[in-house]
Amino acid sequence: MAPDPQASPAHQLESFVSGEQVFKGMLLDVRRDVVAMPDGAHATREYVVHPGAVVVVPILDDGRLVMERQYRYPVGRVMLEFPAGKIDAGEPVLQCAQRELAEETGYRARQWAVAGVLHNAAAYSTEVIHLVFARELAAGQRALDDGELIDIALMTETELDAAAASGDLTDAKSLISLMWLQKWRAGAWPLRWFAAP
Amino acid sequence: MAPDPQASPAHQLESFVSGEQVFKGMLLDVRRDVVAMPDGAHATREYVVHPGAVVVVPILDDGRLVMERQYRYPVGRVMLEFPAGKIDAGEPVLQCAQRELAEETGYRARQWAVAGVLHNAAAYSTEVIHLVFARELAAGQRALDDGELIDIALMTETELDAAAASGDLTDAKSLISLMWLQKWRAGAWPLRWFAAP
Repeated sequence: MAPDPQASPAHQLESFVSGEQVFKGMLLDVRRDVVAMPDGAHATREYVVHPGAVVVVPILDDGRLVMERQYRYPVGRVMLEFPAGKIDAGEPVLQCAQRELAEETGYRARQWAVAGVLHNAAAYSTEVIHLVFARELAAGQRALDDGELIDIALMTETELDAAAASGDLTDAKSLISLMWLQKWRAGAWPLRWFAAP
Repeated sequence: MAPDPQASPAHQLESFVSGEQVFKGMLLDVRRDVVAMPDGAHATREYVVHPGAVVVVPILDDGRLVMERQYRYPVGRVMLEFPAGKIDAGEPVLQCAQRELAEETGYRARQWAVAGVLHNAAAYSTEVIHLVFARELAAGQRALDDGELIDIALMTETELDAAAASGDLTDAKSLISLMWLQKWRAGAWPLRWFAAP
């Protein structure tokens, strides 16, 4: 990735020297780069190249949240998560949010707000997750990918808060989504809502 | 990973059929498994095998937090983060927290609390991050690894909250650490403190 000069003091900056793709599978794209450290020494950096993702906080008119339970093989358990998915090549963030929400849950929203971004594995992945809120929801048909097994759970904020405190909610993007929801509800972190079909 | 039966309803469970290591570098261990879906169909799962990590919330007597700024090559920017690090083979979580805090910041703590865990990339990594609190801190010498360039920043909770709202704090484990800190301060999510050298 191109370094962001604002966020990269010279005494910490690492610059690209050479690189190669060391694995390309159906899901993962893994690279190994040689980088120059600020003192000129070389170091190796291995990381996953990720297209970025969106997590959606879908708020029903009664305040309940549209959640998912999905088996996540790498961690060997069913995870409680907000709806989320990877960005297709060239796809705008809002469009990805609308697509993933509709495909995975069947819900469409009339009001949207883009809250912020998070980096979930900055030590070894380029992944950035965009946090998007959705309300004025209408239920509809969903369209799961082949082999995608997702259960829907409608939960109150209080239930979700208890799930976080008890260790039932451990998914990072979903914990941060809950945090952002509570900050917004408390009037601390405002959201700019806009209408989108 | 062995599935957790409690968290794995039969209609979602995926079971191991065969597997291979597709990349082993200095940092990353990447596997590709064939799994059987609940309907018997086979699917491919690619993921990073990670030893697990610890993130530490170090609270000074005046309430400020010991934070780090570190260049993260995969995302091309300096990240604001709580101190964290990978668990060595066989290392207990508390010992890892004590070691990483001392190595990266020089601080030692007399009081500790283990808050919970989070999964930061459950779709493609086995990583689990243990969230540990530390207080009654004493400053000392740090011992950075060769090539490790970490700046220390002492920040108030208010400053950190503003950094999260403005997009300066985007690291997932650190946002969740801030959330947990605020929940604890508000009396919502209690911590069980214990003394450890």
